[in-house]
Amino acid sequence: MYIRKNLRWSVVWRLTWRSLVIFTIYNTLVCLLYGPLDFHFLDIPWQPVALLGTAVAFYIGFKSNGSYDRFWEGRQLWGSIVNTSRVWAIRVFDFVHPEGNADPRDHPELTALHRRLSYRHVAWCNALRLHLRRQTAELWDTEVAPFLPPDEAATAKNLSNPPTHLLRRQSVELRELVKQSLLTEFRQVALMQTIQDLFNAQGGCERIKNTPFPRQFAFFSFAFVWIFAAVLPLGLVEEFDHRIALGQYHVWLMVPFSVLVSWVFNVIELVGHTSENPFENDLYDVPMTSICRSIEIDIRELLEETELPPKIVPVNDVLY
Amino acid sequence: MYIRKNLRWSVVWRLTWRSLVIFTIYNTLVCLLYGPLDFHFLDIPWQPVALLGTAVAFYIGFKSNGSYDRFWEGRQLWGSIVNTSRVWAIRVFDFVHPEGNADPRDHPELTALHRRLSYRHVAWCNALRLHLRRQTAELWDTEVAPFLPPDEAATAKNLSNPPTHLLRRQSVELRELVKQSLLTEFRQVALMQTIQDLFNAQGGCERIKNTPFPRQFAFFSFAFVWIFAAVLPLGLVEEFDHRIALGQYHVWLMVPFSVLVSWVFNVIELVGHTSENPFENDLYDVPMTSICRSIEIDIRELLEETELPPKIVPVNDVLY
Amino acid sequence: MYIRKNLRWSVVWRLTWRSLVIFTIYNTLVCLLYGPLDFHFLDIPWQPVALLGTAVAFYIGFKSNGSYDRFWEGRQLWGSIVNTSRVWAIRVFDFVHPEGNADPRDHPELTALHRRLSYRHVAWCNALRLHLRRQTAELWDTEVAPFLPPDEAATAKNLSNPPTHLLRRQSVELRELVKQSLLTEFRQVALMQTIQDLFNAQGGCERIKNTPFPRQFAFFSFAFVWIFAAVLPLGLVEEFDHRIALGQYHVWLMVPFSVLVSWVFNVIELVGHTSENPFENDLYDVPMTSICRSIEIDIRELLEETELPPKIVPVNDVLY
Amino acid sequence: MYIRKNLRWSVVWRLTWRSLVIFTIYNTLVCLLYGPLDFHFLDIPWQPVALLGTAVAFYIGFKSNGSYDRFWEGRQLWGSIVNTSRVWAIRVFDFVHPEGNADPRDHPELTALHRRLSYRHVAWCNALRLHLRRQTAELWDTEVAPFLPPDEAATAKNLSNPPTHLLRRQSVELRELVKQSLLTEFRQVALMQTIQDLFNAQGGCERIKNTPFPRQFAFFSFAFVWIFAAVLPLGLVEEFDHRIALGQYHVWLMVPFSVLVSWVFNVIELVGHTSENPFENDLYDVPMTSICRSIEIDIRELLEETELPPKIVPVNDVLY
Amino acid sequence: MYIRKNLRWSVVWRLTWRSLVIFTIYNTLVCLLYGPLDFHFLDIPWQPVALLGTAVAFYIGFKSNGSYDRFWEGRQLWGSIVNTSRVWAIRVFDFVHPEGNADPRDHPELTALHRRLSYRHVAWCNALRLHLRRQTAELWDTEVAPFLPPDEAATAKNLSNPPTHLLRRQSVELRELVKQSLLTEFRQVALMQTIQDLFNAQGGCERIKNTPFPRQFAFFSFAFVWIFAAVLPLGLVEEFDHRIALGQYHVWLMVPFSVLVSWVFNVIELVGHTSENPFENDLYDVPMTSICRSIEIDIRELLEETELPPKIVPVNDVLY
Repeated sequence: MYIRKNLRWSVVWRLTWRSLVIFTIYNTLVCLLYGPLDFHFLDIPWQPVALLGTAVAFYIGFKSNGSYDRFWEGRQLWGSIVNTSRVWAIRVFDFVHPEGNADPRDHPELTALHRRLSYRHVAWCNALRLHLRRQTAELWDTEVAPFLPPDEAATAKNLSNPPTHLLRRQSVELRELVKQSLLTEFRQVALMQTIQDLFNAQGGCERIKNTPFPRQFAFFSFAFVWIFAAVLPLGLVEEFDHRIALGQYHVWLMVPFSVLVSWVFNVIELVGHTSENPFENDLYDVPMTSICRSIEIDIRELLEETELPPKIVPVNDVLY
Repeated sequence: MYIRKNLRWSVVWRLTWRSLVIFTIYNTLVCLLYGPLDFHFLDIPWQPVALLGTAVAFYIGFKSNGSYDRFWEGRQLWGSIVNTSRVWAIRVFDFVHPEGNADPRDHPELTALHRRLSYRHVAWCNALRLHLRRQTAELWDTEVAPFLPPDEAATAKNLSNPPTHLLRRQSVELRELVKQSLLTEFRQVALMQTIQDLFNAQGGCERIKNTPFPRQFAFFSFAFVWIFAAVLPLGLVEEFDHRIALGQYHVWLMVPFSVLVSWVFNVIELVGHTSENPFENDLYDVPMTSICRSIEIDIRELLEETELPPKIVPVNDVLY
Repeated sequence: MYIRKNLRWSVVWRLTWRSLVIFTIYNTLVCLLYGPLDFHFLDIPWQPVALLGTAVAFYIGFKSNGSYDRFWEGRQLWGSIVNTSRVWAIRVFDFVHPEGNADPRDHPELTALHRRLSYRHVAWCNALRLHLRRQTAELWDTEVAPFLPPDEAATAKNLSNPPTHLLRRQSVELRELVKQSLLTEFRQVALMQTIQDLFNAQGGCERIKNTPFPRQFAFFSFAFVWIFAAVLPLGLVEEFDHRIALGQYHVWLMVPFSVLVSWVFNVIELVGHTSENPFENDLYDVPMTSICRSIEIDIRELLEETELPPKIVPVNDVLY
Repeated sequence: MYIRKNLRWSVVWRLTWRSLVIFTIYNTLVCLLYGPLDFHFLDIPWQPVALLGTAVAFYIGFKSNGSYDRFWEGRQLWGSIVNTSRVWAIRVFDFVHPEGNADPRDHPELTALHRRLSYRHVAWCNALRLHLRRQTAELWDTEVAPFLPPDEAATAKNLSNPPTHLLRRQSVELRELVKQSLLTEFRQVALMQTIQDLFNAQGGCERIKNTPFPRQFAFFSFAFVWIFAAVLPLGLVEEFDHRIALGQYHVWLMVPFSVLVSWVFNVIELVGHTSENPFENDLYDVPMTSICRSIEIDIRELLEETELPPKIVPVNDVLY
Repeated sequence: MYIRKNLRWSVVWRLTWRSLVIFTIYNTLVCLLYGPLDFHFLDIPWQPVALLGTAVAFYIGFKSNGSYDRFWEGRQLWGSIVNTSRVWAIRVFDFVHPEGNADPRDHPELTALHRRLSYRHVAWCNALRLHLRRQTAELWDTEVAPFLPPDEAATAKNLSNPPTHLLRRQSVELRELVKQSLLTEFRQVALMQTIQDLFNAQGGCERIKNTPFPRQFAFFSFAFVWIFAAVLPLGLVEEFDHRIALGQYHVWLMVPFSVLVSWVFNVIELVGHTSENPFENDLYDVPMTSICRSIEIDIRELLEETELPPKIVPVNDVLY
């Protein structure tokens, strides 16, 4: 997620230089044909261009909305993971207890137990992140494994969907706790509800990841912008040429303004395009690494640990 | 679901060739009348055309939105089926257990039981898919029956709504488990809640399937685009004709540009139209076959099976 | 609900002939004044007309959205009734049972009981439909009464809100079942939750029924379209007149095109208007009769009845 | 809530006469300066006016949407109060009962108890309505007090938030019922859930009441319309003047058409404005008095009372 | 939150003077070049400007929507905090009680207990507010500490997320109450659900706070408005110049009108911009201080305290 209030020009440039160059060359070409070469074949009236521009503006507006909604839904899902993580932690702490009036001090393993359940949750968050970014192979050992018992970490890594497996482990452990009378049946069902909330968040992320913005909508939005940019100078060139006050050679003035309008339409399309997929580890992403770290800090603070890892800081204005 | 980032031109062509041909013939005809035949009867001013274009652009934008929302709701429903499938599986595994501290090893039938309940769930997913795509008759025996006890498969196939029947079987089996003290009443109610979630997803899909985008909105969107395409060259022809610099015969230049504008409006309408119904087994569908297979893999992996079926791969860029 | 993919021209004609006739007469009158009678008093420039057209297009677009949302919410509410009906049925079947390990065969009245609770539910669906369509007086005896004990049917019919009363009867019966030890308290509360879901769906339908689209929004949308249609030919007439190539009398050509543009705006408004109220038993309705029949078939099939009523078929392309 | 299908002209007039008069005077003045006084100083080209008009149309469209959403959310909240009222009633009737198989006839106070809990609920509905309309001081004694024990009515009236207090009384009474073994703990928690639903509805209404549409958005929408109306005749006057066919004095024709366009923009803004706040006891309100009466009738009918109050009827086409 | 119906001109001025000055200087400069200096180099036709204006109007409309939705979501989250606060209070009062028929008078500590749990809730509201506004360091001791036991206040202040810690304390205390038989397990789980609701509201606020409106969308909206303002006079200047009736020097009239149009576009952008972040303690904020005070009054009134703090009053028309 880009975090500077205004985009640096370098970022803008990187995003748009390709189209800028193409637009400039194309518009110059049109001017060259029309002006010096006096070739008026493709000069067309403005009306269809204006109408086309309006229709295209509608369509890229529609795509911008769709893209923004996808980003925001992705962010909301991770927001719900943050909330549910806290709920999981306090439920584990205050539900997993010896029944009746047994003295917790008779259960020295209780703290380790709370810790294992909480750490496995942190592991799940990280595993989900790697799964969404397709980084499980490279980063599992440093990002997920430290929060899990070694054998569990090794098993889960190679399954087709590691986060699902981790939630399943939580569920199995809860059942065992019931058998050990450390959890009542009623509270087990409440904790299973929390696992369901986590499955819902995970499944929502996978849905956005696996289902791109429908290609038929996205592609034509892209195609229309380029068609519009191709037609624009044909309609504009004569309008500039007519301005006798500008002198004949000032038809060249068309180039910057035509490029500008094409660029604006193109940027709207591009911004929509880059925001379509919020889990790609790029500039315009949901900052999952940062959110996972926050969850880790939260949970370890709730475990009353004092040596907490630092927050993730932005790299080149980007928070990952 | 089409999965290439950009549509192949063959796909675009298949989608739009009919209208392209019609637009071209019609516009040529108008030019022929106006130019060579010097028949100016139907030449009209541009203003009403522009206004019509704006109104039509609004309306097809509205339809695009509606269509996209239908697709996305369909996708969300199947996403919730994925989530609820996992929840069903772990609930079955960890709720269906002998009461108290009974040793599970005294219940060798338990594994088979978990398996039956999970497989029936996979059967339900497939049955719902076939039901939505109206393929129950052809594909039931290969896609659904293998996950069910033979007599159950035979019975369900011929009912008016097979997936409903399968969920009912799950419910009946849960009741029997309560009688056999393998499930507490409290956990039964929690599992019934999961069945309710599945019924909600199923009913949502059936609602979208059975209720098309209201025909009055859809039809006029379609009609307006064609009316607009019919009026467009009448308004445009003189604008091209006036360009004296282009020479008299260049009125023909109107044809490609008029066709282009008509085509853009038509494509927006068509893309909306093709995305209206997300459960039709076509190019722009929710990829239910693929999702069902993922659920199957998920659940069989949770059952610790090792011989898993392969993921569904796209056929000609389309994931079904 | 109209179900043909494209509206028949007869439907279009019925919907729009009145305005078409009025527009034609009015535009002809304007032409007559301007052309033959050479009365140019009301001829105005195009600019304010175009601006008015844009603003009106926005406003009717807004109304279309609102209308469509009302229809779709109505449809979703009935969709949720379908889902909750199935949930009600399986909950009744598998929750209402003698406690403990009592043999169900000792309770021969159990089947009748399940049937009574399910049939009363079908009665509720039908009663809600009649209540929304204000048909209780005529159709109660054929559509609702057959699913109820005779005295109950007679009592409910004359109350101010029959469906509310039927749900109340369900609730009372559940309480009695608890007293008779055929339902545990815990499952009673779960079934009461299902009744709450039904109350929510019922109340949602009543809200849409009783609260029209706010009249201030709806009326001005209607008024603006007619004002626009009144102003349109005044702005258009001279544009047609100026086309000298067309010859003097071709000012008459204005009539069809002005009527066309007026008609398009009018149709957008009308389509929005007719879709405002989804429970009126007309062409553009939620097909409640059909949905109720589906619920009946579903539930009777779940009751393992074999003589099921047929599905509702469309009448003149309309499913009621 | 205005209920006639079409607004009466008197209502339209009352809503818009002020701006109509101002627009007419202003436009006449501009014409006077331009025409007879031949003062062309402020005559400007049309282009910036058209652009301004488009931007303003967008903005008032945005405000219309926001206003309508506020109204509709207000209506939905009261809809949910209707639903939850019914749920409250049947839960009270069928949950508040002597435990076990005790004969209800041994509890003659039970009917009075159900009645007290239901009447207090009606009191809450009315109290919330008065609270939202700031009418507690005047109307409490006639609208709320009759449904409460006298001392309770007197106490609640003077608190800062009477409806909150009434719900609290319900909660306290439920606790006492548990102590008296007339309500099980499990059902108490379910009833407390219903109270939570009521708190959510109440809080939602208070939120809409206390948080106006953000003033920065609302004010500029208002300001832009007036700025646009001020600029419009300056751009329009010459367009009318150029129509030589109209004769010199026909510049006056600008007045009605400029006023008309200004009026349309103004009405869109005004309609949005008047619908912003749905709890103000005016023409465009949520009809809370009527809804409260419906709830009262519903609940008293469920209590099997036979002397029911009449429904609220509209006064001058307005349902309050 | 600004509360006057109409913004004071001083507020408008403060918001927009910078751009007004820049626009005026720039437009004057363009006029100076074009008019007196007769330098027509940059004079361009109107068409691309109009098209640009339309596209930009779309884009800032999209941003306005996004901003408004963020504000409204923030307000809804605090609305849900208000509701849940009341639910928390009555649940605490009526759930935390000695079990069975024990006489509450045997538990004189009960009142203090209810009070502690309610006051800690007020502390949580205030702590969340300070956390969102980054004021924990300055205001904790006056706004939060008075509602907490001294040592608890001191500990929480220095943690990375104080409100999370306070909710955790509530959860721990609930567990202890269970041990002391002042709370049944079932009611504990219900109260934990309320804590979950509070975590969801807190997490939602943090999400909006930590995730700005995506910078790529926001920045280009800003950039496009300024680009449009730069291009506008170039397109407008000749239109004014052509009005020969105005006299040569009247090209200067372009300045106010060009500035006006630029200003309108700029204001729409600015209003969107200032409403993006609803938790910044500025003019257009969610009034959290006022809401927190309302919650405090509500809860203390429910505790039957009589010395209540006053409501927060607006300062210079702004409610914080």
